[in-house]
Parts: sequence; C-alpha cells; structure tokens
Amino acid sequence: MKYQHLLQQNFQVSFNYDIIFSRSIFDVTNSSLIDVIKKEPGFQQPKIAIVIDSGVVDCTNQLISKIINYFNQYQFEVTEANLIIIQGGEEVKNDPDYIEAVLQLINNNKIDRHSFLIAIGGGAVLDAVGYAAAIAHRGVRLIRIPTTVLSQNDSGVGVKNSMNYFGKKNFLGTFAPPYAVLNDSDFLTTLNERNWRSGISEAIKVALIKDVSFFDWIENNTQALNNRDVLVMETLIIRCAALHTDHISKKGDPFEKGSSRPLDFGHWAAHKMEQLTNYEITHGEAVAIGIALDVTYSFLSHKIDKPSLDRILKCFLALGFAITHPILDTHLDAVIKGLDEFREHLGGQLTIMLLSDIGTGEEVHSLSNELIAESVQYLYSFCLLNTEVC
Amino acid sequence: MKYQHLLQQNFQVSFNYDIIFSRSIFDVTNSSLIDVIKKEPGFQQPKIAIVIDSGVVDCTNQLISKIINYFNQYQFEVTEANLIIIQGGEEVKNDPDYIEAVLQLINNNKIDRHSFLIAIGGGAVLDAVGYAAAIAHRGVRLIRIPTTVLSQNDSGVGVKNSMNYFGKKNFLGTFAPPYAVLNDSDFLTTLNERNWRSGISEAIKVALIKDVSFFDWIENNTQALNNRDVLVMETLIIRCAALHTDHISKKGDPFEKGSSRPLDFGHWAAHKMEQLTNYEITHGEAVAIGIALDVTYSFLSHKIDKPSLDRILKCFLALGFAITHPILDTHLDAVIKGLDEFREHLGGQLTIMLLSDIGTGEEVHSLSNELIAESVQYLYSFCLLNTEVC
Repeated sequence: MKYQHLLQQNFQVSFNYDIIFSRSIFDVTNSSLIDVIKKEPGFQQPKIAIVIDSGVVDCTNQLISKIINYFNQYQFEVTEANLIIIQGGEEVKNDPDYIEAVLQLINNNKIDRHSFLIAIGGGAVLDAVGYAAAIAHRGVRLIRIPTTVLSQNDSGVGVKNSMNYFGKKNFLGTFAPPYAVLNDSDFLTTLNERNWRSGISEAIKVALIKDVSFFDWIENNTQALNNRDVLVMETLIIRCAALHTDHISKKGDPFEKGSSRPLDFGHWAAHKMEQLTNYEITHGEAVAIGIALDVTYSFLSHKIDKPSLDRILKCFLALGFAITHPILDTHLDAVIKGLDEFREHLGGQLTIMLLSDIGTGEEVHSLSNELIAESVQYLYSFCLLNTEVC
Repeated sequence: MKYQHLLQQNFQVSFNYDIIFSRSIFDVTNSSLIDVIKKEPGFQQPKIAIVIDSGVVDCTNQLISKIINYFNQYQFEVTEANLIIIQGGEEVKNDPDYIEAVLQLINNNKIDRHSFLIAIGGGAVLDAVGYAAAIAHRGVRLIRIPTTVLSQNDSGVGVKNSMNYFGKKNFLGTFAPPYAVLNDSDFLTTLNERNWRSGISEAIKVALIKDVSFFDWIENNTQALNNRDVLVMETLIIRCAALHTDHISKKGDPFEKGSSRPLDFGHWAAHKMEQLTNYEITHGEAVAIGIALDVTYSFLSHKIDKPSLDRILKCFLALGFAITHPILDTHLDAVIKGLDEFREHLGGQLTIMLLSDIGTGEEVHSLSNELIAESVQYLYSFCLLNTEVC
C-alpha cells in the first residue's frame, strides 16, 4: 500500500543585502547607516534597538552618546532604553541569558519584522545577537556592524548565527542573512594586537582555497599588516569579504544542505582546539593552526609540494601567528575526535578541504590519524628550524 | 561622507518538499515513510529520532511498538532510546523545557543535518518540535506526521514553527520548510469531536478568501462532516492543503517579508481570544469565531451582502462551531488590543484581510473599534435568531 495523493511543494526565496565599507559611521556627516534604514520607504519611522559588545564600548570613546546623538540628528527617537551592552568574546555564546536579554530588548521596544535590530561588535556578539534576531517573530531585520578584522572579513558578512550548547560549538543557530552589513574601519584601530592579527587567518584561508593572487598579495604585505597599516587592512578585508560572499552566492548551496563546506578549511581542528583550551585562543588563532595542520597534511599526503608548504607556513609565522599549540601534543586524540563532531554538526559525509595547490582546494572524505600526528610533529620541527620568524 | 566600497550580496534558495496523503503509515506494507527517508541515496543509513504527542500515544493502540517494529522491519535501528513523548496541546508551546527535551534527543542520538527528526502530533507539537529541529545544527531534517484535521490541512503543511514567549503567541519561531509531510487519515478517527471539527475552520478560511467552489462544496458536505465521514474529510484536507501550499509557493512571499498575510484571515482576534481564555478554546474554534467576526465586519462595512454573510455564518453553525464567545463581551477592549500585537508580530503596516465576496479577499489597513463592537453584537443577535442551528 502506498500513498493515495501527493502534493509537491516547490518555491524559491531571494535574499539580498548590501555590505558597505565605510569609516566613522556614527559621525553625523556619514549617512550610510541612515540610508540603509530608509532604503525601503515605510508607512512610518521604523523602530530601532541596538546591542553593543562590551569590549567595543570599553575601547571607543563616548560610543553610546555618539550613537544616540547620531540617530537623534536624523530624527530617530533613540535613547538608552533602546540599547543594551552585552559581554564580548566567546563567553556570550555560552550563556543563554544573553539571548534572553536581547529578546527582552526586542519585546520591550516592540521591534517587529520591519523594525531594525542593530548589532555592534565582534564575531561572537554578532553570532549571538543574530540568533536572537532570527528567532524573534520568525526573524527581525538585523543590521550587523562588525568591529573586528575577523567579523568584518568573514563571519559578519555571511549568513549564519549561532550559540554554543551542550558544550558544543555552534550547536544552536540558523541560516539568516542580515538586512545589511556596515564595516567601519575606525573600529579596527582600537583592537589589541591579538585581535588585529587574528582575523587575517580567514583571509589566508580563502586565498589558499580560491585565489592565488590574493595569497601573493598577503605574502607581500605582511610587513604593512604588522605595522597596522589601516589602508592595507581595508584592502585585505574587502578582498576576503568579496571571496566569501561570492562563494555563498555562486556555489549553489548557501544554506549548506550538501556535505561540501570549503569555507570550513582548517576549521575541524580549530573548533575543537578552541573548546579544549576553554577559548583561551581566539577563533582566528585556532584557524591559523588548523590551516597549518591541514596544509602540512596536504604536503605529507603528496598533494602540494614543499616550496608551497614553506611559503604558507612562513607567511603565518611572518604575521606573528603560532602554527602549533601544546594541546596538539597533550590532547591529540581529543582533537582528532573533533572530526566526528565536525561531521555530526555539518551532517552528511565527512568532507574535509585540503590543498592541491596554493589557490586550489581539494576535498577528501577521510583523514589518517597517523598522518595527522605526523603533521603535528612536522609543525613542531618547522618551528624549531625557523626560530628567526617563530 | 559616504561609503568607500560596496558589495551586493544576492542569491536564491530553493525549497522543495512532498506532502503525502496516505493511511496506516506504520503498517509494514506501507513504504511511504521509508521511501521518503531513502529518497536521497546516502553514504550510510541515516539516523532517526522521533517525538510523539502524548495525546496521540493515549489514543492510538500500541503506537510506539508499531513504530519501532516498522523501522526494524526496514532494517533501521530504532529503539525506545530514539523516541520521546511530549505533552500535546498548546501547553507544549508555553514551556521551554519541551524544547530542551527535543534538543537533548537530537544531541543524544547524534542527529545531524542529514539525519531525520520525525514529529508525530497535533499542530502545537509540530510547531514546538519544528522549532527545535530548526535551531539544532542550523536545521536538521524534519518529517512532519500531523495527526489532527487542523495540522493536516493547515499548519503542518506550511513553512513555520513557533513557541509562545513573554505571554505572546508565536513570539519565537523561524521559517523552516519540512523535509516532508505525511498525512495519515487513520489518526483522524481517534480524534474527539472538538478536534475533529476544529480544523474545518481553516478550510472555510481558505475557501472564503480563495475558492468559492470549495466553499460551496463544504456547505454541501456539512452533514457528512458531522457524521465523521473520513472520505469526505480526506477530500476537505487535500483541497485545503493544496490551496494553502499553492499560496505559499505562488504568491511570491513564502517567508512573509511584506505586510500582506491573507492566510491569517480571521486570526487577529483568534490569537488574542486563545490567549485570553488561557487556551481553553482550540485554535480552530478561535479561528471560526475570528472569521465570523471579520465576515460580519465585512458586511457591516458594506463589502459583502447579507445573503453571503448568512451563508457563511450558517455554515459554521451547521458544523457545530460557536461563532461568539463570552470573552468578546467581557474583554472586548483586550481583544481589540490584539490588533496591535498582531501588527507587531507580523511587522510592517497593519494589514487585515476582509471579504469582498465569497471566495475573494480584500485587504484593509485599519479597523474601526465601533464597527468591531457592532459586529460582536450582530453575532449575538444572529445566534438568538438561529437557535435551531445554534
């Protein structure tokens, strides 16, 4: 016996959003943010609520009064009642109380699907606020204002949000494109050295799997990046964000229904290392080590040659990244277990991106534990032999 | 000063799912469910977890052992560890502990984006389980098995999920199309009289705004429906589900980004009445009263004529629906406040569907409080004058 009747549902949903690169976005002479809010002529002035990363508030002079003044100048009623500050860094993703606080802000300010929730902060805050925005009223309009290199060139321009749960990174979350993204490079000047450097690893990631000329450019600009040249960093962020968004829109699987996930190159080990070190290393630092590991694995499995491997590892070292971590020595089995969790989170067949050349990825469906261990040892030796850059 | 650089992100996501109408789906001779699970040839046997509405377990003989036996016959490892029972009815949407229980089931059974979560139950359970499925790993595959008239012809075939929060109906939720829907009319025979009748109001709703011939058909089949003729109910469900899914796919706004929401005809008062009566009236019963109210409003504002109004109200009464409720007398101001909450939940401009004819909706952007009160009084008088059907 089979079915008596069948209906086949079939539709498409379009998603569009602008990613705007600017400076001093809360300067009243800069109308970029207001232009976004007024883009769709509404029947009334839309309501606004704002969530700010505590780290950004601490580092930016008079940020809250600047924001309130900005909106007031443009005749938007924004006061401190429209605004909350939440903990920056990974901690915000581990504690559901922050989601509750954002949901209360949305409820108290009667933010609806045509109102705006503005999130200002690093990747973790954008992930958490994005999650709250996505589940309230089945999704309110979210404007992301990423404030770190990592969030401006990678997570902040993408389509995901997340919270950690059951001790698992990003166990909760949805696919929910933002209404718009505004990257303000002024925020980058307030970053400490670790956070300035950290996000560069995502640019190296996307260059390695997609664009050799971008990798050449990064290699040629390590000195300027180390000297905190904002113009050079702006260029890096724009190129990285463009490759990232291009992948999402052109590779046919923006909501990741399949097994392939090239943008997660280097991430299987990175996620597990973050968790095992209790998030003492940043996501960007973990990604640098994860990429170093998978690039070395690519070399040891004869996919790339030694000069390519050397170039990549030296580029990380020249930028001040560590390419090893004690946890790889003490808890390698636990890190390798991360492969299972990675597959479980993504679903489908285990699919890991390796390199077949600089600028060209190649997917495999299994990794050898022995070769992973050998890669770890190789990286330790490489560091010893390159002490001048290590 | 404006932006220096702009990236425009733009992509489409396709959603497809089958709605299968069958009987005895856990009879081992019926492969409909297994066919859905095996549709995409995988690299391994997909994992399965199941959530069942307590009300369905209570009413269906040996359901759990039947389900386990079904899967085992098809070589799927399903035991009681893959299965939980949760509270049926609106209560499940008010208590976040149920979401936690489903998330734990997902985690314990390592359900990933290519595994299956199967939800068996009425609309409230499907809403809650659908929400948990949508936020775990950014969305695991959900197979809905709706067991009531209401869920088989309306909510269960749509693209939404939800939980109540801050005392507000559906404050939390996402748009998340299911992987598949299986409607098994065997479950309908176990419904009590209220739940058998309840979902018919959603069929009347969609007939009134979209398909006069379907309304004629319902009017001609009230007796058969009252006599619990399963064949007639199957026809009603298929026609209603087809109109519902057709609207989602063909009207250009499946994820409700605009202000127009025709399928919410009669729902602004219904949602508020459900809440004010502490969910003592079912959603379907509330929708019947909400439609009666808005149809009467359509007549009193000269959009439809008296014969049309009479036909609609008498059809409800003939099916045993109440078209008034004491709460409309005692708490009319509170019900009218529901208009604001309705607008806030949907966002955008207040947009209420009225009728300009049987089978044809007409949207308005405001309602008169006086005319709402007059409509309530009209309905009371109508009932007094039609005691033979009331």
